[in-house]
Amino acid sequence: MSSKIRVVQYGMGPIGRGIAQLVLERESLILVGAIEIDPALVGKNVGEVLKGGEKPGVEISEDAEAVLASSAPDIVLHATVFSLEKAAPQIQQVLEHGVDVISTCEELAYPFYHHPELSEEMDRLARQHEVTVLGSGVNPGFVMDKLVLTLMAACRRVERVHVRREVNAALRREPLQRKVGAGLRRDQFDALVAEGKIRHVGLPESAAMIAHIMGLEPTDITETIDAVIADQDMTTPFLTVKKGEVAGVEQVAKVMAGGEEKITLELRMYVGAEAAADTIYIQGEPEIHMTIPGGIHGDVATAAIVVNAIPTVLSAKPGLITMIDVPISYWGP
Amino acid sequence: MSSKIRVVQYGMGPIGRGIAQLVLERESLILVGAIEIDPALVGKNVGEVLKGGEKPGVEISEDAEAVLASSAPDIVLHATVFSLEKAAPQIQQVLEHGVDVISTCEELAYPFYHHPELSEEMDRLARQHEVTVLGSGVNPGFVMDKLVLTLMAACRRVERVHVRREVNAALRREPLQRKVGAGLRRDQFDALVAEGKIRHVGLPESAAMIAHIMGLEPTDITETIDAVIADQDMTTPFLTVKKGEVAGVEQVAKVMAGGEEKITLELRMYVGAEAAADTIYIQGEPEIHMTIPGGIHGDVATAAIVVNAIPTVLSAKPGLITMIDVPISYWGP
Repeated sequence: MSSKIRVVQYGMGPIGRGIAQLVLERESLILVGAIEIDPALVGKNVGEVLKGGEKPGVEISEDAEAVLASSAPDIVLHATVFSLEKAAPQIQQVLEHGVDVISTCEELAYPFYHHPELSEEMDRLARQHEVTVLGSGVNPGFVMDKLVLTLMAACRRVERVHVRREVNAALRREPLQRKVGAGLRRDQFDALVAEGKIRHVGLPESAAMIAHIMGLEPTDITETIDAVIADQDMTTPFLTVKKGEVAGVEQVAKVMAGGEEKITLELRMYVGAEAAADTIYIQGEPEIHMTIPGGIHGDVATAAIVVNAIPTVLSAKPGLITMIDVPISYWGP
Repeated sequence: MSSKIRVVQYGMGPIGRGIAQLVLERESLILVGAIEIDPALVGKNVGEVLKGGEKPGVEISEDAEAVLASSAPDIVLHATVFSLEKAAPQIQQVLEHGVDVISTCEELAYPFYHHPELSEEMDRLARQHEVTVLGSGVNPGFVMDKLVLTLMAACRRVERVHVRREVNAALRREPLQRKVGAGLRRDQFDALVAEGKIRHVGLPESAAMIAHIMGLEPTDITETIDAVIADQDMTTPFLTVKKGEVAGVEQVAKVMAGGEEKITLELRMYVGAEAAADTIYIQGEPEIHMTIPGGIHGDVATAAIVVNAIPTVLSAKPGLITMIDVPISYWGP
């Protein structure tokens, strides 16, 4: 490409900062704006809040309208909230400026099942302004859906899909260890689950995407959240988990059809997961059993997938699209 | 879709028959023609030459022009020869009829490196007739390229790619066991390699595709073919391999850049490969190590990938495209 692609980063939390960092590293991209409402970040230079402390000369602003109007972006990379209802006004504002969007909003990964009206509205708006909007990321967006679909392409026939992502929370940052409930008593864990505070968002979206490809829609998608209980005392750099306490979370989404369990997605994130791995098992012809020992690192991969999707989204047809619709690959350096 | 997609199968050898069989199994497709020059097949009903012996009422014809003119296909699935020079006139004839093509021609998987002029000519012809042509299959087309690119999408940075496909020839049909040289003496094997009779076509194409995505082109791609020697006596249902004889073939393609080996593709097909598997190792950030124990079955998967690519190719932009450009997934039943 002759000139650099102009990027605005919308949301400068941990994921947004990871994306912004990668934008700065890629020669073909230029960061032209950064939007964030957190008062602790507003007014700072993007370089100040990234590791390495580079100074790209972009000030973080809380005024999305001003940034979009003045920075002439080619694309906005959006990483704020998992809720599509909350993210939609932010994304729609970008679409109204005639700019493509890639968002890590979990519920946008495959929104047609859970938010059909909002999906239709967003699709119409994107088409009206001749721009594209894609929900992406590592999970949902890759490990438990796009990679599964890609492997399914090698099958004459698919009977059943089983995906398991097992993450050793002991090797991750403290917020993740707290988020999965490590070190809590069972009753504390259950109370937080009931409040919706322990929950990874995205499994039903991945399940709906796979179900669609298997021709199973409309379907019932069930989701359960349970504790993984420690069978021994364990210590991480940040906390201690005693035997009998909660080591982490196990979340399972299932799609039933014709009385059979056709899709099972299991996400287990806990302290002490020694066999951490991403595994995909496709029952069909041929059978395919794929394993990625250690699993794909979530935070690193999300930034990569979003940035690597830029050229595809820039040339995609207008509208609300999903990872089903886009060929993905690396795009460097 | 409201009406069935009309398919002509061009080439009724083992791969073509596998594709035709799957076309007959899919409710959304209808086989409307079959082209083949082998006198043993011409004039027969497609159903007669497929396992199961169904009778779809399509007669195999050697007259491509007549089939294309009379059957009004939406797409032609082409599986004849690995050589692009030999396949090109066949494919171009289809394009001139204004029909999309998916071909298993190995050299078409990524033809820009080895056949730049022919690629340009074919691309121009396809655009002129507003149709799309795609080279596809399991290898090249999937295991050692498209799947690799898909995994690379999760990487911020890719340093080096190493793919190994190890196939246990003992579990495959007799022609494959013979083709890889099982049971030959070393001097016999070397003579056949020198004559070009023992060679899998497609590794340099896969390597060129990955190199392109890594931004390494233009590059030197080297390819070596060597024997795997049996370290014990072995017997298959079809032949015997004595210790010291050839068990099969090892073919390696490499891409060097800046004095470093950046891409290594190893294909090992031999009798006695007990750890048969497809493995992809991406050195970068994050590192990704993927394994499919047993590997993806070649013949089954090639038919699946070709048929599963139909909807994508029908809606793709006109021209000569590659697996880089298309999102792939299952599409059933």
